[in-house]
Amino acid sequence: MITTDICIVGAGPVGLFAVFEAGLLKMRCHLIDALPQVGGQLSEIYPHKPIYDIPGFPSVNAQELVDNLMEQIAPFHPTFTLGERVESIERQADQSFVVGTNEGTTIACKVIVIAAGLGSFEPRKPAIERLEEFEHGKGVAYMVKNPELFRDKEIVLAGGGDSALDWTIYLANISKRVTLVHRGETFRGAPDSAEKVFNLAKEGKIDLILKANLKKIDGNGSLKSVFYEDADKKEQTIKADYLIPLFGLSPKLGPIADWGLGIEKAQVSVDTTDYSTNVPGIYAIGDINTYTGKLKLILCGFHEGAIMVQSAFKHVFPDKHLSFKYTTVNGVHEF
Amino acid sequence: MITTDICIVGAGPVGLFAVFEAGLLKMRCHLIDALPQVGGQLSEIYPHKPIYDIPGFPSVNAQELVDNLMEQIAPFHPTFTLGERVESIERQADQSFVVGTNEGTTIACKVIVIAAGLGSFEPRKPAIERLEEFEHGKGVAYMVKNPELFRDKEIVLAGGGDSALDWTIYLANISKRVTLVHRGETFRGAPDSAEKVFNLAKEGKIDLILKANLKKIDGNGSLKSVFYEDADKKEQTIKADYLIPLFGLSPKLGPIADWGLGIEKAQVSVDTTDYSTNVPGIYAIGDINTYTGKLKLILCGFHEGAIMVQSAFKHVFPDKHLSFKYTTVNGVHEF
Ligand SMILES: Cc1cc2nc3c(=O)[nH]c(=O)nc-3n(C[C@H](O)[C@H](O)[C@H](O)COP(=O)(O)OP(=O)(O)OC[C@H]3O[C@@H](n4cnc5c(N)ncnc54)[C@H](O)[C@@H]3O)c2cc1C
Ligand SMILES: Cc1cc2nc3c(=O)[nH]c(=O)nc-3n(C[C@H](O)[C@H](O)[C@H](O)COP(=O)(O)OP(=O)(O)OC[C@H]3O[C@@H](n4cnc5c(N)ncnc54)[C@H](O)[C@@H]3O)c2cc1C
Repeated sequence: MITTDICIVGAGPVGLFAVFEAGLLKMRCHLIDALPQVGGQLSEIYPHKPIYDIPGFPSVNAQELVDNLMEQIAPFHPTFTLGERVESIERQADQSFVVGTNEGTTIACKVIVIAAGLGSFEPRKPAIERLEEFEHGKGVAYMVKNPELFRDKEIVLAGGGDSALDWTIYLANISKRVTLVHRGETFRGAPDSAEKVFNLAKEGKIDLILKANLKKIDGNGSLKSVFYEDADKKEQTIKADYLIPLFGLSPKLGPIADWGLGIEKAQVSVDTTDYSTNVPGIYAIGDINTYTGKLKLILCGFHEGAIMVQSAFKHVFPDKHLSFKYTTVNGVHEF
Repeated sequence: MITTDICIVGAGPVGLFAVFEAGLLKMRCHLIDALPQVGGQLSEIYPHKPIYDIPGFPSVNAQELVDNLMEQIAPFHPTFTLGERVESIERQADQSFVVGTNEGTTIACKVIVIAAGLGSFEPRKPAIERLEEFEHGKGVAYMVKNPELFRDKEIVLAGGGDSALDWTIYLANISKRVTLVHRGETFRGAPDSAEKVFNLAKEGKIDLILKANLKKIDGNGSLKSVFYEDADKKEQTIKADYLIPLFGLSPKLGPIADWGLGIEKAQVSVDTTDYSTNVPGIYAIGDINTYTGKLKLILCGFHEGAIMVQSAFKHVFPDKHLSFKYTTVNGVHEF
């Protein structure tokens, strides 16, 4: 069991910056994100796009902002559980919480901050049977958390976007055999990635199967083969240790709806004096919350985090007095 | 008369960033500040100090942040009246406002945003008589707005801090004669500035009078002479076109208290759904406002500005529909 002061659900920009504000008040944070990387929408949806409305940055690339935030919070040594979704929250007798993920990780904490954005990014799954049978390490994966898992294995990837192209290129180097199955003839992803994939296929380094659709999977405890329908509507088989369908991610509120929080149009209602929810000890900041006048902007989530920690402090240190100090005057003290 | 959509009282970081948020919604801004430069507390009190809690900046010098904000708002061409204090607000028949300064400048606008921080920075004045008689261009100035005014003139400066040292060094080059009168023997300002001043005195380029106190001033319509008591308690006279006492600035709420706004402990009460005051069309953001949970932080003022403009839009464009767009998607369009 991981133990911390504040467990932050969601490592988007708002969850990340909350670590800084919590750190100024000497509260430790653990962050959990369903994605294999931090940064939320910025890293997942538009890493290379410029944002113009972050105060003090006439322009900043989304990923650069995330990297800056990681540097800013480094002195407070946050810890992370990535690639896992928070499923459960259990209140303990002493009013603290235990947070649990879909992979069985548990975190004991005094305060929960929901910074879950649009919800947890969930993979769009192909419409084939028996997928569940092979999920969780038995042959079907919807994202690449640790590429080493695929070293010297036979891999079938499916999809036509950047993730499918990028991971095909990457795994071509370390896997035994890589096959990319794609519905169309052209790719939605970056043109130079597509060109690389076409070249790898020409050189015989990967198998590229176009105008094809996944049909079914087979195996016995672990995945053995993937079936697809080819351009001529004929069923074909590929021997495979892993199938990685990369059809994009879509955010889902998911389990958050079941935690007894006030929910309004798939968002968590909060009191703007401290961004607390209706459950004492649970706060909600960033895109996930709602209140009169709410704007889904990164800079608003930053403010919400700064205000929120003042109130969270009372849960973490019920006996301590909080005195407000400027960073310019007091500095930032690693702990 | 200057005409604009939004008149912003105070060009501190919060007033400056509000220009950006207003600009995204195609509203023009004019800013007024009592200080001769923009940046509020950051430029006036701690320009060279690092701030650590601006999101996305592990560290940023106060003046650098101000410079970045000026660059960020440049596409929206804000206009400025600096070195003047807003004194009056008058409601017009059509519900718009006319804002007036102590120098007689008037600004017609549809919305007023008070971003006045701790209040307008007012000079600490020496305790001598007849000062008022020579203020406003007749020989007594408490800040240097335009150094050219002092070219080829006989100047007496008084004070021992950075401003007194810096302006002594600067004016030594362009004025006919510069005298610096200082109470003590050593200076509070930067040691290398102090050294420069001592050297200028040694070289005969300025007169440096230590352990001396201003006593009185004389003149007829315009200043003629400054009297001081020297280290031996003897009264001495200096011929002077200008006396510039630089004894620091201290913020005063001042005229803001007289505009019919709800005031609570020298701050303006606001409704946090849009940071509006009790007077329709007047908003208050940044350090000057107060509400339950308020933190006097720069990042909070940024958020307040972003929320505020949504509501201000309805006053500026009562017939237009506001649609919310991300800068990343929509870009920033100069106008
Ligand atoms: C194309 C685009 C352009 C944009 N442009 C701008 C812009 O210019 N300016 C601006 O201010 N904003 C912009 N935004 C909005 C901005 O990205 C969001 O406001 C911001 O990402 C919100 O941050 P957050 O941390 O609240 O949530 P998110 O960034 O959504 O992060 C939330 C994280 O929580 C995780 N999560 C959710 N539920 C769970 C769970 N149960 N378990 C584990 N993890 C979970 C998710 O996987 C996600 O990573 C844009 C958005 C898009 C899509
Ligand atoms: C030493 C120090 C360290 C600090 N460190 C930090 C930090 O680390 N992080 C942080 O977030 N904050 C910090 N702060 C606080 C921060 O500086 C303020 O929150 C910020 O300046 C508020 O910005 P503002 O634009 O609301 O007001 P201000 O910066 O105060 O600007 C208001 C401006 O309005 C003008 N004005 C007022 N009344 C009138 C009038 N009637 N007519 C014309 N002009 C008027 C004033 O002259 C002033 O220039 C610090 C403050 C100090 C003093």
